[in-house]
Amino acid sequence: MAIKSYIKKNEKRFLDELFSLIRIPSISAQQEHKPDMQTCARRWADILLSSGADKAEVMETEGNPIVYAEKNVNPENKTVLVYAHYDVMPVEPLDLWNSKPFEPVIRNGRIWARGADDDKGQSMIQVKGFETALKEGLLQCNVKFIFEGEEEIGSPSIEAFCKAHKELLKADVILVSDTSMVSADTLSLTTGLRGLAYWEIEVDGPSRDLHSGHFGGAVANPINVLCKMLADITDKDGRITIPGFYDDVEELSAEEREMIAQIPFDEAQYKEAIGVKALFGEKGYSTLERNSCRPSFDVCGIWGGYIGEGSKTVLPSKAFAKVSCRLVPHQNHETISKLFETYIHQVAPEYVTVKVTPKHGGEGYVCPIDLPAYKAAEEAIRIAFGKKPLAVRRGGSIPIISSFERILGIKTVLMGFGLEQNAIHSPNESCRLDFFFKGIEAVAEFYRIFR
Amino acid sequence: MAIKSYIKKNEKRFLDELFSLIRIPSISAQQEHKPDMQTCARRWADILLSSGADKAEVMETEGNPIVYAEKNVNPENKTVLVYAHYDVMPVEPLDLWNSKPFEPVIRNGRIWARGADDDKGQSMIQVKGFETALKEGLLQCNVKFIFEGEEEIGSPSIEAFCKAHKELLKADVILVSDTSMVSADTLSLTTGLRGLAYWEIEVDGPSRDLHSGHFGGAVANPINVLCKMLADITDKDGRITIPGFYDDVEELSAEEREMIAQIPFDEAQYKEAIGVKALFGEKGYSTLERNSCRPSFDVCGIWGGYIGEGSKTVLPSKAFAKVSCRLVPHQNHETISKLFETYIHQVAPEYVTVKVTPKHGGEGYVCPIDLPAYKAAEEAIRIAFGKKPLAVRRGGSIPIISSFERILGIKTVLMGFGLEQNAIHSPNESCRLDFFFKGIEAVAEFYRIFR
Repeated sequence: MAIKSYIKKNEKRFLDELFSLIRIPSISAQQEHKPDMQTCARRWADILLSSGADKAEVMETEGNPIVYAEKNVNPENKTVLVYAHYDVMPVEPLDLWNSKPFEPVIRNGRIWARGADDDKGQSMIQVKGFETALKEGLLQCNVKFIFEGEEEIGSPSIEAFCKAHKELLKADVILVSDTSMVSADTLSLTTGLRGLAYWEIEVDGPSRDLHSGHFGGAVANPINVLCKMLADITDKDGRITIPGFYDDVEELSAEEREMIAQIPFDEAQYKEAIGVKALFGEKGYSTLERNSCRPSFDVCGIWGGYIGEGSKTVLPSKAFAKVSCRLVPHQNHETISKLFETYIHQVAPEYVTVKVTPKHGGEGYVCPIDLPAYKAAEEAIRIAFGKKPLAVRRGGSIPIISSFERILGIKTVLMGFGLEQNAIHSPNESCRLDFFFKGIEAVAEFYRIFR
Repeated sequence: MAIKSYIKKNEKRFLDELFSLIRIPSISAQQEHKPDMQTCARRWADILLSSGADKAEVMETEGNPIVYAEKNVNPENKTVLVYAHYDVMPVEPLDLWNSKPFEPVIRNGRIWARGADDDKGQSMIQVKGFETALKEGLLQCNVKFIFEGEEEIGSPSIEAFCKAHKELLKADVILVSDTSMVSADTLSLTTGLRGLAYWEIEVDGPSRDLHSGHFGGAVANPINVLCKMLADITDKDGRITIPGFYDDVEELSAEEREMIAQIPFDEAQYKEAIGVKALFGEKGYSTLERNSCRPSFDVCGIWGGYIGEGSKTVLPSKAFAKVSCRLVPHQNHETISKLFETYIHQVAPEYVTVKVTPKHGGEGYVCPIDLPAYKAAEEAIRIAFGKKPLAVRRGGSIPIISSFERILGIKTVLMGFGLEQNAIHSPNESCRLDFFFKGIEAVAEFYRIFR
């Protein structure tokens, strides 16, 4: 009851603190927002201090700064390391937003803004859960916080940071709120993540845009070539054709498939929620297997030629695409990246020049469900939300999670409070108010239980 | 000598008049330039009057106005109808221009500006050639001018205009300067044009952009689907796979292929001029056959998903492309348009919605080389440029040329003074000064000869 009433009493302040963070447009992918990254990091340090941390500091890296904070209860006790990120995704296309992405509003029981969920909303749940447990005298363990500003661009600096600060980051378990539950009815904890590999492809044809009448048919069109190469990466069964791509993919065991089949899944509802008439994916697998335990290939962006109003008959000089593969545990993203580059260069016809630039990447991850911290998180959610969460593997990627295990030797519990409808990475991102406050309660319960 | 000296004397004024037209950004494809179309049409009417027309007027249409002017010499004599267009192509990408597209400059013996060649430069050649012949007392025939403002968007209004003004447009031959010569060394007259069909394709997948981690692999990606459909339109031999597409294509005769083979063509030079390492086109045909007498398929523009800085892991909601086919004589563009639409809808998978919007189109054209006006143009060029032009079929399209034949029953002589290096439709469009003045001389000679 102490937890619930503390949260109730501080509701407004919790939201005010969240909104103050949301208003800082900390888009890591866009150079113009560089100063916002500093502002956001400093704001977090202030909030962490006022939430009860003994100390909080903004630590510089090669890229955006990292916020580090800690609360020492007793050196004999266990230590939890909370990881989060303060950077957000770009907000384009702006015209699809119903309200301004960096002006948070509450409407229909939801907070609407970029970062309302991913990850400002969720990291505020962590911090206010910690504050609640601390202020109510329930905190049993030491807590460290590490908030980075480059998660949405693949965390290029945090590996070096971890390697340089192994002692500082020492902990028994890492706690992360940056994932979603299956649905509001089917609560879940994420026990697996996919890896990621991301590339930009540039196809260069003629040195200038050509008149498609004078040259069409005699000179290869870079867009036609790019489309052909991208089309050939998957076959009609939805499988990726890059030689060696599936070599390290572990086939799902019968037991695991059985577990996945037990997750409630309403295909009609799923299709309606995202507005598609039919689903498509790798032959031989269910939708839930496809989006969590199987790799995928997506063109995230494509552009070339004339894209303005009206029609222009042009044979363009260049064509571009941003493409990515989601990977599953055991697939090494660097190996995949090399396979991809080799493949593209092999299939690139002689009449164009093709450049492949690897962008960020990371490994997948699996969390054992008998971990004490996993058990504590499970029980905490049961208490706060009234229902035991399922253990499920999800399709998203938090590349740093597998790096933590590799570098620091620490397992992570993914205690996420997001929902699919929150539309993270999309226009009109949002977060349910009730999940925000129940999430805080669950984190406070976690600290009460975990010792 | 009278012709040459008149031109010499008026060189500066001719350029001033051209520049005054170029400075009006009459881009027909872009709505914001609507007022510029009016301005440009009125400017032309003024120039036509001051060049010696008896009357000139701006006539309204459903779209952009048409400029009509005439000079009556003797109703017993033959009549030439000069067709041109005052609209120009869009200028994007702007950052590739070395000088502002609508601020003409003279550099290295060339005029640099959008419209320097296509078609403001070339239509000024026509008008100043007419003026020269008239002022020097050499004009034997009546001359009518019809300048439209929608050629670059497929001339949607001029057909209705021709049907409504058959009497006004009555003539013995149509003269058009809107084509290119093979090269400065290999002068030519264009005796054939390709037709055109143009479409916009929209592929709609999920109702909003999705997180590629949560949905990738389980939901079809509209860009992947679009790439696949576009890739499949041509096969590895560069042939178009749309059923029925080649039904009306006339195979080249052995004689015609023999003629084409005689046109000087330096493949190494051609590749260097456009900056490609190798050429590609339909198997079994030479480059000059491919770009003039064979149909082609080009993606003129493509866009979808995240195309900003950095990387965004998104499974986009929509993907778009602007695509076109160049057609050859006997292929009906409406038939092809229907075949294309049917094909796309047939191959569109059930998990996306595909819209095909036909844009402009037009038939190909062939000009007989025994036409008296053709003979006059040939001789006029020989005199002005010192070399007899070859008769060649070219790959571009001027859809209205075949419509003139169909509606007005008049053949067209394509007396073009462009060159490939002029980069029409591209950044840094230009026109050689010597060709501009020799062109004026050739047109004046045409009027001296043709009766």
